[in-house]
Order: sequence, then C-alpha cells, then structure tokens
Amino acid sequence: MNSTLRLIPLGGLGEVGKNMLLFEHGRDILIVDAGIMFPEHNMWGIDVVIPDFGYLRERAGDVRAIVITHGHEDHIGALPYLLRDVVALDTPIYATRLACGLIEARLAETPNRGRANLRRIAPGEGFRAGPFEAEFLAITHSIPDGVGLCITTDLGRIIHTGDFKFDYTPVRGGGPGFTRLGQLGAQGVLALLSDSTGAERAGYTPSEQVIAPALDAIFREAPGRVIVATFASLLSRVQQVFNAAQAHGRVVALAGYSMLKTVEIGRNLGHLDAPKGLLVDLGEAQRLPRERVALVTTGSQGQPEAALARMADGTHRQIEIVPGDTIVLSSTPIPGNEEDVARVINRLFARGANVIYPPLASVHVSGHASQEEQKLMLALTRPRFFVPIHGELRHLHAHARLARQLGVAQENIFLLENGQVLELTAEGGRVVERLPSGTVFVDGAGVGDVGPVVMHEREVLAHDGFVIAVVPVSLATGEVSGKPELVSRGFVYLPESGDLLERAAERAWQAVRSLGSKKQPAIIERTQDALRRFFYEETRRKPMVVAIVTLV
Amino acid sequence: MNSTLRLIPLGGLGEVGKNMLLFEHGRDILIVDAGIMFPEHNMWGIDVVIPDFGYLRERAGDVRAIVITHGHEDHIGALPYLLRDVVALDTPIYATRLACGLIEARLAETPNRGRANLRRIAPGEGFRAGPFEAEFLAITHSIPDGVGLCITTDLGRIIHTGDFKFDYTPVRGGGPGFTRLGQLGAQGVLALLSDSTGAERAGYTPSEQVIAPALDAIFREAPGRVIVATFASLLSRVQQVFNAAQAHGRVVALAGYSMLKTVEIGRNLGHLDAPKGLLVDLGEAQRLPRERVALVTTGSQGQPEAALARMADGTHRQIEIVPGDTIVLSSTPIPGNEEDVARVINRLFARGANVIYPPLASVHVSGHASQEEQKLMLALTRPRFFVPIHGELRHLHAHARLARQLGVAQENIFLLENGQVLELTAEGGRVVERLPSGTVFVDGAGVGDVGPVVMHEREVLAHDGFVIAVVPVSLATGEVSGKPELVSRGFVYLPESGDLLERAAERAWQAVRSLGSKKQPAIIERTQDALRRFFYEETRRKPMVVAIVTLV
Repeated sequence: MNSTLRLIPLGGLGEVGKNMLLFEHGRDILIVDAGIMFPEHNMWGIDVVIPDFGYLRERAGDVRAIVITHGHEDHIGALPYLLRDVVALDTPIYATRLACGLIEARLAETPNRGRANLRRIAPGEGFRAGPFEAEFLAITHSIPDGVGLCITTDLGRIIHTGDFKFDYTPVRGGGPGFTRLGQLGAQGVLALLSDSTGAERAGYTPSEQVIAPALDAIFREAPGRVIVATFASLLSRVQQVFNAAQAHGRVVALAGYSMLKTVEIGRNLGHLDAPKGLLVDLGEAQRLPRERVALVTTGSQGQPEAALARMADGTHRQIEIVPGDTIVLSSTPIPGNEEDVARVINRLFARGANVIYPPLASVHVSGHASQEEQKLMLALTRPRFFVPIHGELRHLHAHARLARQLGVAQENIFLLENGQVLELTAEGGRVVERLPSGTVFVDGAGVGDVGPVVMHEREVLAHDGFVIAVVPVSLATGEVSGKPELVSRGFVYLPESGDLLERAAERAWQAVRSLGSKKQPAIIERTQDALRRFFYEETRRKPMVVAIVTLV
Repeated sequence: MNSTLRLIPLGGLGEVGKNMLLFEHGRDILIVDAGIMFPEHNMWGIDVVIPDFGYLRERAGDVRAIVITHGHEDHIGALPYLLRDVVALDTPIYATRLACGLIEARLAETPNRGRANLRRIAPGEGFRAGPFEAEFLAITHSIPDGVGLCITTDLGRIIHTGDFKFDYTPVRGGGPGFTRLGQLGAQGVLALLSDSTGAERAGYTPSEQVIAPALDAIFREAPGRVIVATFASLLSRVQQVFNAAQAHGRVVALAGYSMLKTVEIGRNLGHLDAPKGLLVDLGEAQRLPRERVALVTTGSQGQPEAALARMADGTHRQIEIVPGDTIVLSSTPIPGNEEDVARVINRLFARGANVIYPPLASVHVSGHASQEEQKLMLALTRPRFFVPIHGELRHLHAHARLARQLGVAQENIFLLENGQVLELTAEGGRVVERLPSGTVFVDGAGVGDVGPVVMHEREVLAHDGFVIAVVPVSLATGEVSGKPELVSRGFVYLPESGDLLERAAERAWQAVRSLGSKKQPAIIERTQDALRRFFYEETRRKPMVVAIVTLV
C-alpha cells in the first residue's frame, strides 16, 4: 500500500485548522469547514479575516467536496468567498440541517452566480467523495446539530472531532455518540484530530442543563424586566430562556438582527420550541408591565454596535435600561473582548440595573471539552496518531501533554501550524512541507487589497495622526515661493494649536530656502524632514508627514 | 458636633478611587495616592492617563499632605504631574521605605523645580496633617511595604485598606496587622474603604508561599535556561526566583529596564537578598552553560516593547530563545492584555521553548483579597459605613453584596463613582454632589491637549486612513482650473489603486464644474462630498476626506 494522505490546516489567527482543514489523497481534496476569523486589535479597520485560498485556487479542480462540521461563523463564514472566487459553485457541500439553514442565510446575503449545491445529512449518515468516505458523528457543542467526522480512505480511519464537548444531558437532542466512537476505536483509528480549545481547563465542562436552575432563580426573583444576552447561535440557551420565561409568566421579545434571524431559522427547522403567544415583538413588550417581560438580545461580547451595548450606552432606539431591570450575560468573554464586556457591565450597573454574569452565577458553560473530556475522546478512539487542532499553539501543547499522559508516543503526536503539511502513510507520519498560507483581510468591499503597508500607515495615523504640507513652487522660477500650507488631523487639537502649525510652516520654509535646489524630490524630502523633527521636538509625537508640491 | 468629612474618589478609568482619593474636613484636604492609568484600546496613541486635577488645582492651598499606600505606578505615577502643575512642591508626602525609593526614582526621571518633601514612615507609625491623624496599617500586597490607613478626625476613624490581601505567610516581612485591625474595630470604626478588585473571586487568595514549590519543580526539571517573567515591583517573586536559582546551582541575570531599576532599589533598601555571586549581567550569563542560568525579565503582560516580547519575536539584542529554554510567566494577564499575552506565549512555543503559565502550574497568585478575605476585613473592622473602592463598578457591586451578607445595612453602603462626593456626618452619610472629574490624556509631551475631537479623528484614520484633495483654483478667474491632486495613506494599497484615485479625481472635478459657484467653502464641500460618496460606493470604506484649495 503506497498511498499517502495529507492533512493541511489553513488560515487561522493563531488557531490551527479551526477555520479550514484540507484532506488530500492522491490529487483529491476534501475541504473541512470554511470559516472567518475576527480581527485582532492591531488589525486596523479590518472587518473580517479569511484564510488565504492561494493553494486551493491552484487546485480548485481537485476539490471533491466541502464538509461543514457546524453552523458557527468561524466554520461557515468564508463559504461565500470560497464559492465566489475559488472552487466551482456546484461543489457539494455536506452539512447538517441547522448548518444548512445558516449557510443558506449567509449565502443569501452575498450576491452569487447561482445556487450552491447544499446536501443535508444527519449524524450517523455519510457520503462518498472521490477516495474519501465520510460519516457524521454525533457530538455536542454550543450550537445544535454539530458533528464530528470519521473520514476513511484506503489508509484507514481518521476522526476529526469538530468543536465538541461531552454533554451527557444536552438541552435538546440525543447527545454524543459514545458507543459509535468506541466502536470505531475498537475497529482501529489511524489518527485523531481533536478540539484543543479547552486544553488548559482541568476537569469536565458542565452540562448545558446547569443553566436552567440559575435562570429559574433569576426569573423568580427579578422585580422588573429580565434581559438575557447570549450568542444568537446558542439556540439551546435561547430555549432555556423561553422555558424560564414561560414558567414564570413572562413573554419574550428578541433584540438584535442576528438573534431575530437565527431564532427564525431555528424555529423553522425545529430546533426551538416557542408555544403560541410566548414570543412578542419589542414594541408589544414595551407596552406590558415590566415584570411580565423577558428580552433575549445579542451583544454578550460587548460588541459596540450590538443591541446590549446600545442599551448600556442609552442609544438603543426602543429599550431604555431602568433601575429594576435584571440583565444576564449568558456568556464569557472571548479572549480579546474582556475590555468591551467589562465596559458594558459597568455601564449597565451605572444605569441602576442589576447585572448577573459568570462566575457570580452559573449562567454560562463552555461549548468546548475540558481536559477530562479530551482524555475520554482519546480513550474511546485509541488513535495511532494524534493531531491536536482547533486552538492556539499553547492549547495544542497542553493537549499534546494530555495525550502523552494517556500513553500516546511523542513521535506519534503532530503539532502543526497553519500551512504545514502532515503526510501520513502506512509507515508513519511526518511534516513534509509548508505551503504559503496565512490570512487575507476583508475591509469593506476589498478582499486582500489591504496588507502590511496600509496596516502600518493606519497604525501611525491611529497613534499620532497626520500633517500634510502643500508647498508652493513657482511655475516660472521652480523655486519655493512661500511657506507651506499645513493641514492636520488626529495630531493636535487645532483650535489650540494654530501657533504650533504656524511655527512649523515657518521652520519648513527656512529649511527649503537654505536648500538651494529646485528639484522637487529634494524640496519634498527637506520639508518632511524639517517638519518631523520640529513636531517631535515640540510634542514628542510622530505624526505622518507628507509634503506635496503645488505649482503656482 | 457639626463637622463633616467628605470623601472624593478621583480619576480612574472605571476603577473607583484607585488612583486618587481625597479626604476633606472643613477646608483641609488629605490626598491618598496619585497614580497613573494605562490607556484602553480605544484611546488611540495615548501614553498614560492621569486623573483630572481641576478640582485640586482650585484648592491647592488647602492640601495638607499626600499619603501613598504603596509604590505601584497606579498609585505613585501621577506624582510628577501633581507636584509640577498642581500642589506646592513642599507638600509633605508620607510613604513607606520602598514606596519612597520608587517615588524618588520616578521623580528623578522628570525635570522638577526642586526636591519633593518625602517623609518615610513605617507601618504602625503615623502622622498628623491639619485635622487628620493618620496611622499606617500593615497589610500584604504584591509589592512589599504596602500599607492600609487609619485616618482619624473628630468624626471618628476611617480605615482605607489600600490594595491588600491577607497573606498569613508572606515571603518576607511580618504580614498583616490582624490584631491592630481587630483593636480598631473594637474601638469603633466610622467607615471602611476596602479594596474590591477581587470581589468576583470566591474563597481565599493563596499565599505567595505557594509559588516556591512550583518554581522548585521547574528549576529542578528544566534542561536548559529558566526565564521567569514577572512584574518588576513584585520583589517577593523575584526573591523566590533568586532562592530557587541558588538552590539549583544557577546564577541569575536580569532583563528589562524596570526590572534592573526596581531590583537595584529593592536591594539597596533591604527588600531583596542576593548572596554574592548569584547575580551576573546578561553578557556573563550568555557565556555560561544554559543549565546554570536563570533570567528574570519584564514583559509578563505581553507588552510589545518589553524584553519578553522581544525575545518571543526574535528581536532581543542579547537573548535568543532556543529549544530547551523553559519560560515561566509568573503573572496573569491584566484585563485588556489577554491578546498580547497569548501572542507572546504562542511565539515562544513556536521557537521550541517550553512555556509554563497559570493555570497550568501554580506560578502566580493575585495580590488582591478574594471574597473570604474581604469578609474578614469587614468582620475585623465592623464599620458603621462601608464604601467599596478600588475596582470597577461591577466589583463594587459584588463587594457590596458581601457586606450585606455580613449584616451591613443597605443604607450604610455607598457605591461611589469617580468625582462623586460622599459626605459623612455624625448622623449619616449621603452623596451630595458630583465634581467635574474625569481623566486627562498624556500623549508625548502633551498633557490634556488631546481630547474627544482628536480621538475621533484618530479612530477614523485608524479604520480607513485619509484622502487629501488639493483643488487648483485660478487666481485670475476664481474657478476650479483642473482635477484635484489626491494624496492618500492608510486607505488603499496605492501601487494597485492608481486607477481608483484617478477616477475619484475625475468624479470630484465633474462635481465642482457643475457647481457654478466660485465660493471656496462651496468648492471644498462639494469636492469632499463627491469623494466620500465615490469611495464608499467603490470600496465600502469611509476614509477621512479633506479638500484644500490652492490658488494657481
């Protein structure tokens, strides 16, 4: 048997194989997930980040199928770009029911050439694509209908957990397929690719069920409105709010575009039960006594444009926070969002609301496995090779440590970075090459046009603003004919800085007059140098300085 | 008895009374702490933030003394500004020995008119300043020599905890003054002002001593260098690294300016023991076998300019991280720094180092009290009034909840925001007014010149850059004589956008030609409008657009 299988994680800001992972066998490619990333603080003005599809573009004809593990944006959000620019629109996309619903909604938002080839299958079912035979494995996660994958080729079985936790008592649905995982483990698993997100967390992630009593107590004691902020995709949580509201005689209204959209999709697909009369619109909720009302809203990550932040800022058009309101943040901050979340919490308190958030109450649990669940996944599947994925390098290292504790040999554990190619054969595995990979910035309508140069300019502008100097040069003599006109923004407060700019213009003029050259590049450079030096001396700031010549 | 006492927290980005708190009795003012804040992510280009001294400036003649609870930057860092611009340079400043050493170093960095009036006193000692009698109370914190305060006036005793935890077994020093606190409680305490930072954390903050066995295990097992990153001011931690290094036959070298400076001050003042030969300089450490070397470095918060980040990036001039290095992050991220810390950890792993950080090992404990310690402080001091301080509003609310659990009546608990004035009399307490307060941005040499206007400009520039249009207007006719010249930065990648700017200039020219006005403001406005619209249509971006007229 001479075949080889190549595993290639792509994209990701530090998180390995999260947003896209390729299986390559011979020339055939199977794509797992196509998600977006959210920009970090130093990615100035970037809206979203997608994987670099450079490698896939060359190999587009070899893509046999796309398979989606679940409907979160970091797993489906890049599909519009992938289908528009890279692979054929009729490439089969395999996903579960809810993921298909969310993908359809996502694709409907973007102009496309036609209809994508979506193929809905359920956990336990499978498909064949070229040399790949795939089966959907039931797991639990913070969105319903997530799956793991068992991908079989002539080399053997590979299990890809997707994002998972082991929830014995999920709010809806049948829970993880423990027996199927054990059966596959008994039959032999070549490699396990397993979610590492929670690898720094000891113990077991609690079941979603622990939320119910906490919500029940809150709904019982709240003197006025209850406003619950959570992820729109966390439909089981939304269901729990519906249940608590119903039990305590409250109606529920929804706030935030993505909450409205996802709840609609969830209801249509049978993932949410709302008895008749429970859901009302915001306007109606406003007319009812506050103690009869619950709201479910977006913005639990402190996003400044989301409904909750607007309520906290007092800029929401319909909802004004008043003393007596009880606000529940049913989430924990995703790393990087801590500051925004804290700001929203403090502002809600300042408006007199009572704010309840973890760890002060059990109003959130993670959707990812902790260490004991990661061990259970390893113990059930007993893989020959172990590839921790879905996490930053720190998480992969922590996950690898667990695998070693369970007896997986160091040489059978592969820590990949995005773009690295792991080649598996019957003999063993090794990292054979690194593809040019990385991420592409989406800024407004531009995909990939903004790179390091523009980022650097924005960083300079963000810190110290700019000064433009328009230098008058005589058309007749070629000499500088006067002081430059200076225009500045983001540098100093202009109403109080007229004198500074005046003196700067004077200094620049002195500098070019002593130059003795009529060459425009020399005039520009001398002006810029003089201004930069002057501004640093006077203000210890380094604005961007650009001089341009105008012929007069 | 008709006297009143006013408590006024000032400054603070959300944290109440952390950086400065005023005690006012009659006309006399006692200032507690004068610290800086570190800018949040949306404070573009700001170096540090200080409290707004507006109120104090008017009342400068009434300031009797400044008292400093401990030597952290957020408690002493604004002293240079306060002494330079606001209060008399000879105002007495009371502080403990280490705090005095750090204040002297801080003041020496800034040009000053003369020598500050520093008065060194020890825990258990006190001073009198106008109507205030103050006593330093021994507490424990993440810097040695921190104190709480007992401030007595004719109204009674007020206890201000400072930043504290109850460490029964500190690495050095005698620990908190439990009996003195109990004695004061028995004698009667009017009000307790207590550190709320840890109010969301259940249980007890572990003793600093728990670090020793963790470091011991790391030093025993590390195959190469051990590099420990921590706060420069956390001298007990530095001492523990010295101890572990000595026990395992390693020398210690220091990296990072603030680490060198603080260790020098700490050694001079007897807060650090380093046996002869233990400390070597970085150059010497480089020449020794790696398994004989330990480094202590700054940068545990992921600060991009600090030594650890430069090691992680491969840009440190002396230290190159190699496989076999063991790096210990002996700290946890301060909220807002999570992303930077994660980046540094991942990059160190990518260089082949082993990285150890909480919670994977017990290499850090907080310097702030958890809930059980906060309860103990309340139980020992039995105050009539309770004022939670040193925390964001969310922490104050959590702390107030604890006080209610311990039987403090709701009406005797005061949650202040910065600038609010709490007036205490023999009869009771109430919030009587709100002073214009807030924070002042320091940007380069400028103190307070950068405000909301410049911040907004920087935000726009950070997101989408700018386009300047230089519009030629005929000196003779007053008419626009040609297409504007466009200059742009941070907007689009210019080498690939020539055509876009070309078309934009054309569009702008069309727009002003159809204007039929020779008024410059109209020309400018029309040009800007046309360009903004064009760029949004084409790119979905909103760069700052500024048009200027040049007469030709």
